[in-house]
Amino acid sequence: MEQEKEDSLKKAPIGVFDSGVGGLTVAREIMRQIPNESIIYFGDTARVPYGNKSKDTVTKFSKQIVRFLRTHDVKAIVVACNTASACALDELERESDIPIIGVVRPGARAATEVTRNGKIGVIATEATIGSQIYNQYIKKLKKNVTIYGKACPLFVPLVEEGLWQDPVTDEIAKRYLAELIDCGIDTLILGCTHYPLIRSTIGRIIGEEVTLVNPAYETARELRSMLKEAGLLNEEAPGLGANKYQFYVSDSAEKFKQFANSIIKYGILSAKTVNIEDY
Amino acid sequence: MEQEKEDSLKKAPIGVFDSGVGGLTVAREIMRQIPNESIIYFGDTARVPYGNKSKDTVTKFSKQIVRFLRTHDVKAIVVACNTASACALDELERESDIPIIGVVRPGARAATEVTRNGKIGVIATEATIGSQIYNQYIKKLKKNVTIYGKACPLFVPLVEEGLWQDPVTDEIAKRYLAELIDCGIDTLILGCTHYPLIRSTIGRIIGEEVTLVNPAYETARELRSMLKEAGLLNEEAPGLGANKYQFYVSDSAEKFKQFANSIIKYGILSAKTVNIEDY
Repeated sequence: MEQEKEDSLKKAPIGVFDSGVGGLTVAREIMRQIPNESIIYFGDTARVPYGNKSKDTVTKFSKQIVRFLRTHDVKAIVVACNTASACALDELERESDIPIIGVVRPGARAATEVTRNGKIGVIATEATIGSQIYNQYIKKLKKNVTIYGKACPLFVPLVEEGLWQDPVTDEIAKRYLAELIDCGIDTLILGCTHYPLIRSTIGRIIGEEVTLVNPAYETARELRSMLKEAGLLNEEAPGLGANKYQFYVSDSAEKFKQFANSIIKYGILSAKTVNIEDY
Repeated sequence: MEQEKEDSLKKAPIGVFDSGVGGLTVAREIMRQIPNESIIYFGDTARVPYGNKSKDTVTKFSKQIVRFLRTHDVKAIVVACNTASACALDELERESDIPIIGVVRPGARAATEVTRNGKIGVIATEATIGSQIYNQYIKKLKKNVTIYGKACPLFVPLVEEGLWQDPVTDEIAKRYLAELIDCGIDTLILGCTHYPLIRSTIGRIIGEEVTLVNPAYETARELRSMLKEAGLLNEEAPGLGANKYQFYVSDSAEKFKQFANSIIKYGILSAKTVNIEDY
């Protein structure tokens, strides 16, 4: 009986959420690194973006989403949004009896491991930079490091407009990154889930001697360890016909699918709209 | 008794709402053109922007806001957001027993009046352009005109980042406006409330032979006529101590005040946060 319960728990899906489509870069890493796991993804496309909104608002939205994900009996939740991780993770963890992990701590840990000169840059939304959350995590893990944060509010709209390789994105990136270059950082955290999509532009401008840290990748790694340790890792591939990846959004599902399919090659066949304010 | 009721109705405030701060350009015109009127402004800063969201979502949000404004006994409502006017005005009007005006019809009317060659351009958000609403209104008012619509999704973030005079905004404007220039338009509707803030950039690039139509200005004019006709125009200035202009937002009031004060020189002293999802 106990064994059965445990098995069914292992087979339960992982809840992943983001303010919109950016968190798909995290979902993509989870699909790659722990392919047996099922995922329930929620993107808050009706209220996106979170990055320029207040802590209170982002926390309220995040709590509604966690309540929605719990209705799908998820075994763990990944806050696949740096802003929501920065603003709401503490409160979400306090209220939850299942594991919740954000993208900030894994990104912070990786940065402390790869920096050689102790100068770490963080680029992220205004809300994430304002929260100083990367600084807090990094300082806990390693003394003698200096963290340079820079909000890059135009990166998200530029990515969403598809200007991934474009002189305008280059120009904006040059402005945002100039002071980080002057500070002599050797490590740069891509502290917003949209940024890996313009990784090559950022990498070219910041210079190849700077190591780029992608928290999406690190989070999938940490999720795997955490599930394994907790005995929650699904050891079997889901059977044929299992609805392995399910996508929910708060705005039009059709529009989400278009963008989502440009990120996840898996082919997102269905997405459903949820009235998230009811949760 | 009847007279008293009429007087109190005249003194009632006008409700003005927008997805965020852009509608302040409309509020500013109302303040200038009908200075006796009191205003209750609501900016949906927790869920901004509307311009890339679906008709259903924008309509749902707009209805909540109208319900909120009605709790303040407004005598009329101005939908000071092109996207909300495009997506929701019909449905709002159907449900309302007080006058509701949007910004689209006044803008469309002005454009038909000023065009000489019958070629009218409209720049706006994706949702507004997708709705074809300007085309519908213009075609009703004047035959033999051709309307060229162009969505300019990056203008809002560029304006909100303060790049009102900037080479990047120039470059983006050149791309967006190139096809309108090729079409030989002589009139251009600034179909999003943020755009008047980069009016000089747009005007320089589109060329001085093209007349720019600002729906915010036209809406305040139409509001004045409508109130006068309905016997609702406030003929007396509000007394000292009257809380003439009140501002409400769904996200942090502090942040709103900063931007608002850069648009309205009046000095916005107080703004309050409202839990708009409760309406």
